[in-house]
Amino acid sequence: MNLLKEKIMMDGKVIMPDILKVDGFLNHQIESQLCKEIAKTFKEKFGGKKVTKILTIEASGIALALAVAYEFGHIPVLFAKKGTSKIMHDDMYTAKIHSYTKNVTYDASIKKEYLTSDDHVLLIDDFLANGQAMLGLLSMCEQAKVTISGIGIVIEKGFQEGRKLLKKKGYAVESLVVIKEFKDGRIIFK
Amino acid sequence: MNLLKEKIMMDGKVIMPDILKVDGFLNHQIESQLCKEIAKTFKEKFGGKKVTKILTIEASGIALALAVAYEFGHIPVLFAKKGTSKIMHDDMYTAKIHSYTKNVTYDASIKKEYLTSDDHVLLIDDFLANGQAMLGLLSMCEQAKVTISGIGIVIEKGFQEGRKLLKKKGYAVESLVVIKEFKDGRIIFK
Repeated sequence: MNLLKEKIMMDGKVIMPDILKVDGFLNHQIESQLCKEIAKTFKEKFGGKKVTKILTIEASGIALALAVAYEFGHIPVLFAKKGTSKIMHDDMYTAKIHSYTKNVTYDASIKKEYLTSDDHVLLIDDFLANGQAMLGLLSMCEQAKVTISGIGIVIEKGFQEGRKLLKKKGYAVESLVVIKEFKDGRIIFK
Repeated sequence: MNLLKEKIMMDGKVIMPDILKVDGFLNHQIESQLCKEIAKTFKEKFGGKKVTKILTIEASGIALALAVAYEFGHIPVLFAKKGTSKIMHDDMYTAKIHSYTKNVTYDASIKKEYLTSDDHVLLIDDFLANGQAMLGLLSMCEQAKVTISGIGIVIEKGFQEGRKLLKKKGYAVESLVVIKEFKDGRIIFK
């Protein structure tokens, strides 16, 4: 997706060794026009599949998920909530997710009634790096016995192991851009 | 907004004494069609004003803010981030926000470069109760010397003091529905 690559080249900030900040247009300030273009591209990729619900995780996936839901004819969005709850509620699916960037482990949760075996779920997120957030979402999808329609990622760090881990579990990923490496602060796309 | 009232009556859950859960359609699962109708109504209310940016706070305001941004011709969205950071960064506006529901105080922050005196800001949030989150957002807007185009709230708890506190600061609020009270677990609209 060339528009997105251009945007990343122009406004993305590399923080050595391997953090890419896109908070000018994707996950703090959000360019809603870009969001729409991203969503249209996901519609092209997954439009042939049955999709009844868009699933993501708070906070930076939410705007993207809504934009994709619009393109699929205004279907519902569901976002997993983050938190460290001491009590495990019976009415929630939960997963432990480790963030390597922040070096913390948190609980993600989804109310059981909103994710059922009737659902055909398209999972959307802004980044795929070590794949831990996506694996957590998929674990909750497995608990709910949903049908996975696809996994759509905006920016994949191709040099980290997310794709490999997901593949090992039997899941294919569609990423709009894949970063091969950061070299002297520059972004090299695959 | 009758559609929203009906939705709240049908799917909202009152947890005594004064919590309204709308996580089936607004802030966990999100009905994107309803989101669009809400956004159109905000466009009718604020369409006469100059608006260059939609501002909200994570996480439940984000989908609404994007939907409103679409209606205003795909302008940018900005969401304040929540967290308890020990370090105050020079490049951030910050505000302390107390949540009465959760009985915690947290920091909200916005990168200075994304909120400037050129901005005409429409603030959007899902709930107005004690007004603390909105006052925090407005404090950051004041620090940035933006022009406030309006404040749009989806559900206002009319029996709490949010509106009064905002009025005292000189701000008017447009709420799509106002709850007068909860009576024996039922919702009474104003």
